[in-house]
Amino acid sequence: MAQKRAVVLVSGGLDSATVLAIARAGGWSCHALSVDYGQRHRVELEAAARVAKALGAVEHRVARVDLAAFGGSALTDPGIAIPREASAGIPVTYVPARNTVFLALALAHAEVVAADAIFTGANAVDYSGYPDCRPEFIAAFERLANLATKRAVEGAPITIEAPIVHMTKAQIVRRGRELGVDYAMTVSCYDADREGRACGACDACRFRREGFRAAALPDPTRYRPAP
Amino acid sequence: MAQKRAVVLVSGGLDSATVLAIARAGGWSCHALSVDYGQRHRVELEAAARVAKALGAVEHRVARVDLAAFGGSALTDPGIAIPREASAGIPVTYVPARNTVFLALALAHAEVVAADAIFTGANAVDYSGYPDCRPEFIAAFERLANLATKRAVEGAPITIEAPIVHMTKAQIVRRGRELGVDYAMTVSCYDADREGRACGACDACRFRREGFRAAALPDPTRYRPAP
Repeated sequence: MAQKRAVVLVSGGLDSATVLAIARAGGWSCHALSVDYGQRHRVELEAAARVAKALGAVEHRVARVDLAAFGGSALTDPGIAIPREASAGIPVTYVPARNTVFLALALAHAEVVAADAIFTGANAVDYSGYPDCRPEFIAAFERLANLATKRAVEGAPITIEAPIVHMTKAQIVRRGRELGVDYAMTVSCYDADREGRACGACDACRFRREGFRAAALPDPTRYRPAP
Repeated sequence: MAQKRAVVLVSGGLDSATVLAIARAGGWSCHALSVDYGQRHRVELEAAARVAKALGAVEHRVARVDLAAFGGSALTDPGIAIPREASAGIPVTYVPARNTVFLALALAHAEVVAADAIFTGANAVDYSGYPDCRPEFIAAFERLANLATKRAVEGAPITIEAPIVHMTKAQIVRRGRELGVDYAMTVSCYDADREGRACGACDACRFRREGFRAAALPDPTRYRPAP
């Protein structure tokens, strides 16, 4: 039987690296897709290439889309500062409709490579309050996807797999370590420097550090010296 | 009362020009958005700018996304010929997940400008067999959109308006003419030349010409001389 084919959204961060390892362990042939959306933390894209290669993706593509042209987020707008402490509600690092755009691009790629699934690292537990990381959003996208494409309407349905959506960060890193993921090659920080060294203070750094601590695993993150 | 705000997807073609005129006639303040997705017919983007200005959009933005990198369509892949006669089923001019990507980008822009609606020229009648032009697709996207964004989950729902989805091409051009749309500035042809002159033979040309004929209206389309 031919190997099942999937598009896996790989950001270069900890979550999506774990998802790629889970997909590979499940026997999927994985087409890794990263999105260059004008993010500040471009070292993530270099990390994504390393992750895709190390975890055995059959290819790694980078799709460019200029969400930065719309503005509205600390992750794409240099005029908005990255918060260095926890905030209430949906934070300024929220990028408008980001996961909708990412999944739409993944769907386009999935149709071209004839994939039966899209894997996303969406996570609703330790998440930063982003609405497009919730299970009901994923389910709504799956429903949309099966109405949207020639391949689906011609009888080849697609599923949206979010294998870590209900996991805590500690569960994610534990699962990834079991599968041999080297988290030293991933970058989660919203404000990493050009060498990919983490700030240690933003939401992403705090969730990540707390994850390794709660999992009782060594934290391989490279932090930059305090200024 | 403040004027209602909408993002209107404007391609430069006949359908979306009509939709912009309908939105304006409905009292909406319109943010026109075009997508540069690596299409062959780039004269469409110039037409979109003309249409947005002529019909009173408050702004016109072009979002770039490289769907051409994925391939798979005659509209983005120079290696696939544009058919010059009618074809059965979903044609090779279908661009994988195009309307999903376009609506996702419109949703991102809608959130930034605080729009309450997105207008699309999707049409399921004289359509070329594209699955993502059907009313059930539009309804599924609206449902998704209301789960996807910070603005929606914080209490400002968004609607996806597809005012011409059930109209024939003849009804569309009749409505547009009533609203004063000058169709000479629009380009529908899949294979227009650099001056925006139409081939007269592709699906888009045939539907358009037939629309003017059935509406008993003069066809202002500029056709290029036969080779």
